[in-house]
This record gives sequence, structure tokens and C-alpha cells, in this order.
Amino acid sequence: MNYRMIFRLICYILRVEAVCLLPSVGISLFHHETPALLATAAAVVGSALFSLLTYLFPPKDKQIGAREGFLSVALCWVVVSLVGALPFCLSGAVPSYVDSLFETVSGFTTTGASILTDIEAMPMGLLYWRSFTHWLGGMGVLVFLLAVIPMGKGKNSLLHVMRAESPGPQVDKLVPKLQDSAKILYAIYIGLTLLQVVLLLLGGMPLFDALTTAYGTAGTGGFAIKGDSLMGYSPYLQAVCTVFMALFGVNFSIFYLILLRQFLKVLKNQELLMYLGLMLGSIAVITWDILPLYSQVGEALHQAAFQVSSIMTTTGFATADFNQWPALSKTLLVLLMFVGACAGSTGGGMKVARVLLLCKAGRRNVKRMLRPRSVSQVHMDGQAVNEEVLQNTYSYLALYGAIMALSIFIVAVDEFSLETNATAVIACLNNIGPGLDLVGPMGNYAAFSPISKLVLSFDMLAGRLELFPMLMLMVPMAWRRT
Amino acid sequence: MNYRMIFRLICYILRVEAVCLLPSVGISLFHHETPALLATAAAVVGSALFSLLTYLFPPKDKQIGAREGFLSVALCWVVVSLVGALPFCLSGAVPSYVDSLFETVSGFTTTGASILTDIEAMPMGLLYWRSFTHWLGGMGVLVFLLAVIPMGKGKNSLLHVMRAESPGPQVDKLVPKLQDSAKILYAIYIGLTLLQVVLLLLGGMPLFDALTTAYGTAGTGGFAIKGDSLMGYSPYLQAVCTVFMALFGVNFSIFYLILLRQFLKVLKNQELLMYLGLMLGSIAVITWDILPLYSQVGEALHQAAFQVSSIMTTTGFATADFNQWPALSKTLLVLLMFVGACAGSTGGGMKVARVLLLCKAGRRNVKRMLRPRSVSQVHMDGQAVNEEVLQNTYSYLALYGAIMALSIFIVAVDEFSLETNATAVIACLNNIGPGLDLVGPMGNYAAFSPISKLVLSFDMLAGRLELFPMLMLMVPMAWRRT
Repeated sequence: MNYRMIFRLICYILRVEAVCLLPSVGISLFHHETPALLATAAAVVGSALFSLLTYLFPPKDKQIGAREGFLSVALCWVVVSLVGALPFCLSGAVPSYVDSLFETVSGFTTTGASILTDIEAMPMGLLYWRSFTHWLGGMGVLVFLLAVIPMGKGKNSLLHVMRAESPGPQVDKLVPKLQDSAKILYAIYIGLTLLQVVLLLLGGMPLFDALTTAYGTAGTGGFAIKGDSLMGYSPYLQAVCTVFMALFGVNFSIFYLILLRQFLKVLKNQELLMYLGLMLGSIAVITWDILPLYSQVGEALHQAAFQVSSIMTTTGFATADFNQWPALSKTLLVLLMFVGACAGSTGGGMKVARVLLLCKAGRRNVKRMLRPRSVSQVHMDGQAVNEEVLQNTYSYLALYGAIMALSIFIVAVDEFSLETNATAVIACLNNIGPGLDLVGPMGNYAAFSPISKLVLSFDMLAGRLELFPMLMLMVPMAWRRT
Repeated sequence: MNYRMIFRLICYILRVEAVCLLPSVGISLFHHETPALLATAAAVVGSALFSLLTYLFPPKDKQIGAREGFLSVALCWVVVSLVGALPFCLSGAVPSYVDSLFETVSGFTTTGASILTDIEAMPMGLLYWRSFTHWLGGMGVLVFLLAVIPMGKGKNSLLHVMRAESPGPQVDKLVPKLQDSAKILYAIYIGLTLLQVVLLLLGGMPLFDALTTAYGTAGTGGFAIKGDSLMGYSPYLQAVCTVFMALFGVNFSIFYLILLRQFLKVLKNQELLMYLGLMLGSIAVITWDILPLYSQVGEALHQAAFQVSSIMTTTGFATADFNQWPALSKTLLVLLMFVGACAGSTGGGMKVARVLLLCKAGRRNVKRMLRPRSVSQVHMDGQAVNEEVLQNTYSYLALYGAIMALSIFIVAVDEFSLETNATAVIACLNNIGPGLDLVGPMGNYAAFSPISKLVLSFDMLAGRLELFPMLMLMVPMAWRRT
């Protein structure tokens, strides 16, 4: 176990965080928000100083193996959240540290679940930081770090970190060199975000709103800077967000294929087809179901499309209180929460690719039961799927169920309704944000006890890192020296 | 595909059903219930006559392979339910055939979900038949049939049928000859049922009540002959049921080991330990949680024990309306619904053995992720578990999730609350009976639309037969001639 290398990564990531906090310092300075300014500046200086400690313990080699990959990713995310919470609580804007931590974890994991009861009263600098955590967490900072810093001989290091940090059952290699693949992905991410900002500005949205909304969309996070989420914006601005939420839920390698003009490959991508099919089908069903609530078909379609896009990509923005919708629509939205977005996107949930893989594996097993001697492999997009990937998908599913059950049980101690408890856990574990009942799109998570908030924070991290890295933190074997 | 052998099994099973209907004919005769008498007699004569058709199509060979095993079990259960519903609807006691079918499927699958709104108004003969379906369905009639009739050369036939009909991931062989194993299991089943009847009679319960209650307990079914389930009986009678429900949720091979005085093996059985641990732990938590509702600790403990035993073994009897209990207790009960009873018992749910197996497989996979080159096997009770059993457990889990999601979606069209929809499906798929809200222990399933009732009937059958046989009915490959 290369402890020193893990420590180095943590220090590097803190340095990145310090830099990322600087715009907030500027905004607080500009708006004369003294407590927020001091708190954010303290966090910047503190983490910058701490990061210097790495030079006291230089790593002997820079190799990152499978175990280091899991542990460093999990630890980095925990540390970044612990530090990112400081501005909220030091400034007094969020008095409790547990609440601040919940909000920050919710930001980095792109969940968007909030404990704030009066969002508009927050200092601008903190609101900016809150939304920016979505953008940072969306693609994963550690992969970014390793794509930029040269790793010397440890050429598999990036692979191990990517496996642990990137969403989906498999890591896509766009180009032969993994480092270049990562850079291409970030370029697409930045490009799409900028495009959305421009389109929002063209619709008359103020710059601050456009930036924070784009961060929330790009990371499929869902923190809004208004108490009523995106309800107050024009239909054009809402429609832009509908489209971009759906886009950020697509596997980014699809965009790369489009840039290369390989349209045939795009059209044959099974995950994309299933993603779009589920999305359009759900929009159709919900439009029909909520028609009596809205005056016109166009209005119902607009609301259905926004909410489906928001929930399925696990963003969590809202333009309507779907807590008030009929049971069929609510049920469908909850089911979509589980499916989630595509692998290799910034979205959460189980991922469409995993659901597809489980369906295919199920078909294979039924075949094998009927003809015990037949041999058959599972194929995806024309390629045979490694049995190990399949095994990991299965244990993912089992672990997912176990974490969900255990969390629902602990959170139930708060004695809220079963619908509140269950959907709060589902919304956090799948990085969505709003659930139903008390935690519906117009509610928030403030009422939960500190213990529940910590459990939900764990769930958000587990969901974002796809369960295994957070689990490894608790496995003694992962920590062993050799 | 040996179609003729499947047809022969269906005809044989109808003959068994005709015989099993005879006591109801007698009871209706004794109580002068003319419509019930005529309806039941018609069902007896009809199925007896139909069963003679098998002599027109004698099977060429008696071999039952894996495919025939799945299909014949699924078809037999469907046919037995279709015929068993006739007395209810022909007599006019349940006017709709879909309702009658729902009630009968609920009986045979030992679910105990009811569409009856006034149970006490039912003719005695039909009440007896309703409870007796639990007893028949508990152990599975097809295995019984094959254990009794000689199969000639097809010596693997019983194995294939047992795999499809018996609950749990693996088939236990108590003794080298499978036919003898099956006979031992039935002897234990009958013995325990008689013991319970005697204990109930000693507590002053009338014979009719004692028989029907014992049938409901033995099959872990849950149909009661009173509108308030077992609420009106004395604490002694309720306590007898608490203990016997828990006993019938234990793997029957444990009782065989006890008969052989192999107590050490019993104490080392991992599934049994987990089953008892979960049960006692849940009783403790719920007792503490519902304490404010009851005047004394003893009373709270009594209620908690009964309800936990009833839900975990998927029986569904009730002595309290747990729909009114605090959220923690309700949540815990819903989670127990998923776990269910032990494999090789009459109980439903996922089975403790499967949950245990998934935990162990998860641990193995985490190990493999940390040390990719290590080889390790999953062990259960000291024996290595076949990888195929593991694969099937995984696909069981995936399929379980898929059926649940799809059913909840279809049932949601009825626009009842999410809690009603979701717990109705969970309660049917796990063969429990009562859910929460509208389908709580004091509610019933009458309000659902016919389509929902058919979906829930499918779920009950799928749950009882552990998903695969019912799935095979819809797979064209299973029906192919070769």
C-alpha cells in the first residue's frame, strides 16, 4: 500500500480546491459579504498550507494500484467535502457543521439535496461555491488531476483512478492513451457548459444565474439559487435546461463519436437508444397522466419533459411540484430514479448500461437453465462482455440493495413517513436531490437528525463513486500494508 | 419437449385437486350451503372428468428434463388456480371470476392477500377450501405427486420438478434417494400441522377454526376466517401461532437433523442463525418502538413478536393494525418482507439463504477487486458453493427487481398512493399478504382494477415459484419442440 502517494494526491487535490474557491472570494469581496469573504479566504489559506505537508513525506514511487485507486478516490472525496464545508459554517451562513457537510457532499456528488430553508438569503459568494461544487464533482477532479500531472512510470495509475471515479461499469478508452482520453472528455465538458451559458444569456438570464444554472446542469447536480428552483424562469430558459440536462446524461464518448462524424456508431449504441427510448416513453406517459392538471397539451408536455429529464439524469431541478402529481407519474419518476443516466456521463443512478447489462445477463441465464450444456456470452454493442465486468455489475446490484435497505432503516429512526424516508435515501443514493413527501421538490432535508444527515451524506458519496470505493474505506484488507 | 408428459402431470394434479375439494363438499352438505355445495361438486366432477383425457394422449416416455420441469410446474400451478377458483365464482359467493382467481392464487401461493370485504359471510365449505389451498400450496403439490407415483426410468425427473417448485437457491437432499427426501419432508409438514391443531384445540379454539388457522400457519399463508384476522383470539392462541409461524419459516431439513439428534449441525447452520438473529433483533427494536402505544412491555413484546413472525415468514396473520405503528416499525417490517423465511421452508420472500449468499459473494468480489489475481470460493456451512448457484442467485435478484419495478408501474395506473401500490406488489411478490395503507392488515385488495389484480396474481405465482418457472412460460425457447 502506497500511503505516501495517497497522501500526495490528497494534498494536490486540496491545492486544486483552494484555487477553485478563489472566484467565491472575489464575489464575496465585490458584494461586501465580510463573513463569507473571511470564511472562504480562511479555507483557501488553510488548504493551501496543508497541501505543503506533502513535501515532508515524498512518495518513494508514484505507482497507484487497484487498492490505492479505490482508497485515494474515496479519501480525496471525503477530504474535499470536509474542507469545502468550511466556508458555509465558518461564515455562520449554515450554523451547523453537519449541515454544511451535508450541503457540500450534496454539491460534490451532484446530488442537489439541500438543507437550506431560505436559499435567497445566502451570500452570493457561497451560492457560487455551492453551484461550482456540482461542476467540479460532475466529471471527477481526481481524474482531471492525473490527466494533467505527469505520472512517470506508473502508467496504469490513471486507469485505476478512473475505474474508481468514473461512472459506469467499464472505462471507455476513446484514444489509445488514457491521459488523452481524459483530456478530450474534459474539453467536451467545458465546451458544452459554455454553450449552455451562452444560450441562457441569450434568453435574458443574468450572468450569475446563467453560470450557476449551467454548473448545476453540467454536473447533473440540481442546486438552484432560488427557493422555487427554476420555476420562475421563462419557458425558453427551462427548455434550454431540459435539453442540456438530457445531453449531460449521455455518455460523453458519444459526443466524441459525433465530433469524429461516426454517426452510424452513434445510432447503433444500445445504451443511447435505451436511454432515449425510456426518456421519450416516460415523457409521453406522464404528459398523458398530468393533462388534467394543465390547461394545454403543450404546457403538460413542457412540464413532463423537464421533470423527466431532470429526474432521469439525476439532476433534480424542478419547474413543477411533482409531489402533487398523480400516483402513476410519481411512481414512474421514482422508477426512473433507479435507472439513472448513461455510463460515462455526469449523471447518477444505476446507469442505463448496467440495467441493459443485467437484462442481457438475465436472458443468458434463462437460456443456460433451459439448455444446461450450452455456452453463451453476453454481448454489448457487438462486443463480448468480460465475465468480470458482469460479476462486478451483479455485486454492484446486491450491494446497492443492501446499502439502500440499511440506510432506510437507520433514517427511519427519525419517524418521518415511509415515503419520506425511502425516497430520501433513494434520492441521495442515486444523486438526484428531491424525493417525495417531506423531501419533495419544494421541500428540503433540514428536518432530518444529524445522524440521518450523515447516513445520507455517506449514501451520496457511495452513489457518486458507485459504491465500491466508499465500501473499501471500511474493509480492513484494503488498508493492509501489503 | 415432452408435451404429453406435461399434460399427464396436469391431469394427475387435477385429480389430486378433485380429491382435496371433497372435504369442502362435505362441509357445505353438513351446513346446508346449497350454492356452495353445487359449485364445489361441479368443480370436483369437472376436474375429475377432465383428468381422464390423459389416457387419450399417453406419454411415450416419462422423462422430465430441465425445461419440462419448469414448464410443468408453472402450468400446473396456473391450471390448479384456474380450477380452484370455480367454487367461489360458480356459487356466487365471489361474483367476479378475476376476483375468485386472485383469491385462489393468493391461497395456493400462500400469500393471503384477499379481495373479500366480508369474510364471515362466506359459506363454511368455501372458507375451508380457501384455507386448505394454503396448506396444499405450502409444500408444493407437484413434488408430492412425483414422490408418490413411481417414475420408472426418468430418475432425474423429480430433481427437475423439485428445483422448479421448492423454495430456495438449492435443493437439499436429506437422504440419498430424492423420493425418500420428499416423503420425509411431507411427514414433518403433516406432523407439525397436527401438533399445532392439538395445541390450538387445547386453548379452547373450535375445531373448524383450529384446522383453518393451522393450514394458514403451516403454509405461511395468512387467510383467516375472521374479518379481524387473529385479533379476537386469546393471547395463548396468538402465542401458539407466533411460535408455529416461526417454526414453519425454518428450513425443514433442520427438523430432520433434530430428529436425527444432530444438534451440533443445527447450531452451526448459518441460515438458521441469521434467521433467528434477524427475527429476535427486529422484535427487540419494534417492541421498543411501539412501547408508547401499549400499556405494558409484555403486551408490546407479544404484538411485536407476532407481527414480526408473521411478516418475516410471509404468513400475513395480524393481531394488530401495524399500519398505525410508528414509521421505524413499519419500515423494518417492509424490509423483513424482502428477506423472507429460510430456504426449504414454506415461507416466501427472497429467502435468508439467498441474502446470506449475496453477502458472501459480495465479500468475495471486494476481495477480488483488491487483489485481482487471488482465487477464492464462496462457502456456506463449510461447503464450497457452486458458481452456477451463485449466478442463478444473481439473476434471481436482477429479475426480482425487474418484475417488481414493472408491476409497480402497471399497478400505479389505478392511481392509489405510492405506498399502497408499492407495498401491494411487494406483499404479493413475496407472498406475504398485507401491505401498508389501503392494503394494510385491516384493509384488502378489493379496490384494485381487474388488470392490477391479474398482475398481482402473476406476481404471487412468480414469487411462490421463485420467478423462473413463470418467466419460462413467456420464453418461446422454452416451448420449442427440441
